[in-house]
Amino acid sequence: MPTTGVPDYTGDMSLPSRAELEAIAARAGAQALQHFRRVTAERKADSSLVTAADREVEAALVAELGALLPDAGILGEEGAAREGRGPYRIVLDPIDGTAAFVAGLGTWCVCIGVLEEARPIAGVVHLPCLGETYSAVGGAACVNGTPLASLGAAGTGGDRFIVTHAHAHRRHRITYPGKVRSLGSTAYHVALVARGVADGALLGHAHLWDLAGPGAILAAVGGGYEYLGGGPVDLGALADGRRAPDYVLAGAPAALAALRPLLGGRTGSP
Amino acid sequence: MPTTGVPDYTGDMSLPSRAELEAIAARAGAQALQHFRRVTAERKADSSLVTAADREVEAALVAELGALLPDAGILGEEGAAREGRGPYRIVLDPIDGTAAFVAGLGTWCVCIGVLEEARPIAGVVHLPCLGETYSAVGGAACVNGTPLASLGAAGTGGDRFIVTHAHAHRRHRITYPGKVRSLGSTAYHVALVARGVADGALLGHAHLWDLAGPGAILAAVGGGYEYLGGGPVDLGALADGRRAPDYVLAGAPAALAALRPLLGGRTGSP
Repeated sequence: MPTTGVPDYTGDMSLPSRAELEAIAARAGAQALQHFRRVTAERKADSSLVTAADREVEAALVAELGALLPDAGILGEEGAAREGRGPYRIVLDPIDGTAAFVAGLGTWCVCIGVLEEARPIAGVVHLPCLGETYSAVGGAACVNGTPLASLGAAGTGGDRFIVTHAHAHRRHRITYPGKVRSLGSTAYHVALVARGVADGALLGHAHLWDLAGPGAILAAVGGGYEYLGGGPVDLGALADGRRAPDYVLAGAPAALAALRPLLGGRTGSP
Repeated sequence: MPTTGVPDYTGDMSLPSRAELEAIAARAGAQALQHFRRVTAERKADSSLVTAADREVEAALVAELGALLPDAGILGEEGAAREGRGPYRIVLDPIDGTAAFVAGLGTWCVCIGVLEEARPIAGVVHLPCLGETYSAVGGAACVNGTPLASLGAAGTGGDRFIVTHAHAHRRHRITYPGKVRSLGSTAYHVALVARGVADGALLGHAHLWDLAGPGAILAAVGGGYEYLGGGPVDLGALADGRRAPDYVLAGAPAALAALRPLLGGRTGSP
């Protein structure tokens, strides 16, 4: 972290455009697709999976995004870390849903976020297999170029659904009357909430790189994160890469209030 | 049902080829895609959803498959019914996962099965949004043209997963130690088991049109269906379109034996 001799941040960094961010995510997705259903996984120190694809795509993203925002800090799931100057930080997960990727399930995504201090201000969630690209820049969110509408009131009817992390069956007593789906990627779950497709998302003890990019998209449509046990999620407190201290809910404020009693708190270990 | 004057079945009906079945499914998928994210749903008498896409695609499938197998009976989710001559019956669900389709989730599929009496002997499960086509003809199963291997022993490790119906959170006490996913389509769930991606599937009280096509694929790799409460699933008993009387498990025999105690039986109404 070379801080000596670094000039003061001048505040003139311009944010990347939607087209720039989406193009970088698309290239990363194409690179990951070259490995899809061809790689074998290794296990990281925290017992989660990693593949050569994760590392290679992260390196490419760091090079591209680092050049686009030369003063921004960088934090990546696979170890990328760069100290920045000024308020901006790039946070990325080259393949969110690595277990799905390894299993051959096409619901993984490339996830890029830009934080201004603790606030997500830009993000891309790109699913190469499904051909879906969610993005937010300047407070406006899109999917495949079509603007996303602000989130309305939550429904809880039988055909509505929420999305949950893949261990929810053992850790919560869920009484939500609609459908519960679990699709294999935290960032995709949040994107589906932002799109108004899912009523809400119950995420695991997520990391900043799972939350920042889709958090910008969710914020652009009036939604946000809260902890299952209550209280706001301070993304700045996760800036060192630690896991969130509790399960994270994603949704519109009214939906979170309606859903929390239906998600039953914790029943087991995290 | 004109049975008078119908000549005896001569037994010379030849089954369609894999290429014929896959081409029909691909055309149906393209037709459904024209409606995807553009249709509104209506509710059927059983409170499930239907769209103009379901009806239109079913009509096209009935016309194509009916011409290909002129003596076969036909049963479709949206009401198609033709009395046949001889042992073959075409069973189809034009859009399996209509709720996912209506929500804009790309995990729905076109599902075609051919039964010989009660035995599924050919099937196609085609997912247009994911670009995945599973098929079985003549006892050999493929995904996108690549043969599927016979199912091995089940793992239950932390990165393995099972798939469940979308109301499993309220109806079962699941203690499976791995991940639980729910992706929005019964036939896709079974296809993922046949591919060896998922260790097993806990399906709802499914219909014959959800089970026949993927059942042929699953059988080709050594798997099958059993009821959650035990006992084989007689597809012939579902030939009138009734729901299965119990939750259905899909997997290799050893996997089903290992999974059943981890799926906790029923805890509520079906």
